[in-house]
Amino acid sequence: MSIQNLDDLFLHTLKDIYFAEKQIIKALPTMAEKAAAPELSAAFDAHLSETELHVDRLEQVFELIGEQPQGEACPAIEAIIQESEELTSEIEDENTMDAALIAAAQAVEHYEITRYGTLISWAGELGLDDAAEILRETLDEEEEADRKLSVLGESRINASAMNEVE
Amino acid sequence: MSIQNLDDLFLHTLKDIYFAEKQIIKALPTMAEKAAAPELSAAFDAHLSETELHVDRLEQVFELIGEQPQGEACPAIEAIIQESEELTSEIEDENTMDAALIAAAQAVEHYEITRYGTLISWAGELGLDDAAEILRETLDEEEEADRKLSVLGESRINASAMNEVE
Repeated sequence: MSIQNLDDLFLHTLKDIYFAEKQIIKALPTMAEKAAAPELSAAFDAHLSETELHVDRLEQVFELIGEQPQGEACPAIEAIIQESEELTSEIEDENTMDAALIAAAQAVEHYEITRYGTLISWAGELGLDDAAEILRETLDEEEEADRKLSVLGESRINASAMNEVE
Repeated sequence: MSIQNLDDLFLHTLKDIYFAEKQIIKALPTMAEKAAAPELSAAFDAHLSETELHVDRLEQVFELIGEQPQGEACPAIEAIIQESEELTSEIEDENTMDAALIAAAQAVEHYEITRYGTLISWAGELGLDDAAEILRETLDEEEEADRKLSVLGESRINASAMNEVE
């Protein structure tokens, strides 16, 4: 794909995050399965439903700019997910497993946060206000998911400290 | 590397971000060269000095835990940098180039923000308070770099709108 202007760049990044969201949909069920803490597993399940909604919203944005929804390979998200899979395949201890899963999920969230932030800024510049609004809804949810993972990380640390005291 | 506990996970992630910071040091001069706006180019130059300091700080953390500083391949940062290089090699328009460079740099910052955030949380859990403090200094600088890039993005948009009016 040749990038001549901001419209091309916007479309390229839209395809990148569309591909990324679909990879995340594939990865989340395994993460939910691997999680030891029931609340972490439930958070991954809940985020799966949210991610399906994010894909729908991206399809709305493709429609608003008159393009067919289409992904474009995003090696960054593939690398983050693959590293998480390799790492967690070696871990047996439950507390360490949840720590690794939370870290991987937060790396995924931050990738999405930066891409959605960029897309919103460019949508504003291109006069695509409806697209910007749709993308903003998803960005808010990704930021909330990242905060929730931080809280789950704190709960994990507290539970682990309690176990050591007992 | 076998991951049995949180100490192993901490060391693994420290090696990952150490490798990432070194890749960023290699990438920043090219980004500074490609940038059209002098203030964006200057920001990349300034961030290069800061990144060298981040490497020094990571070496201090390795020392605090009695380990030799060592990198471990981080495919995520490689993918982010490589995508930026491929994308910007196709762009001729200056405004589009700066937009792409800012987006790539923010993706790099967010990768670092999530990894440092995780390391600080784990350092606290492992009782490595001095390490946590050192890592916090870097996290603050990465967050500030991300904010500065957003401001540079706004300046780029305003300058581009002015050019269209003229």
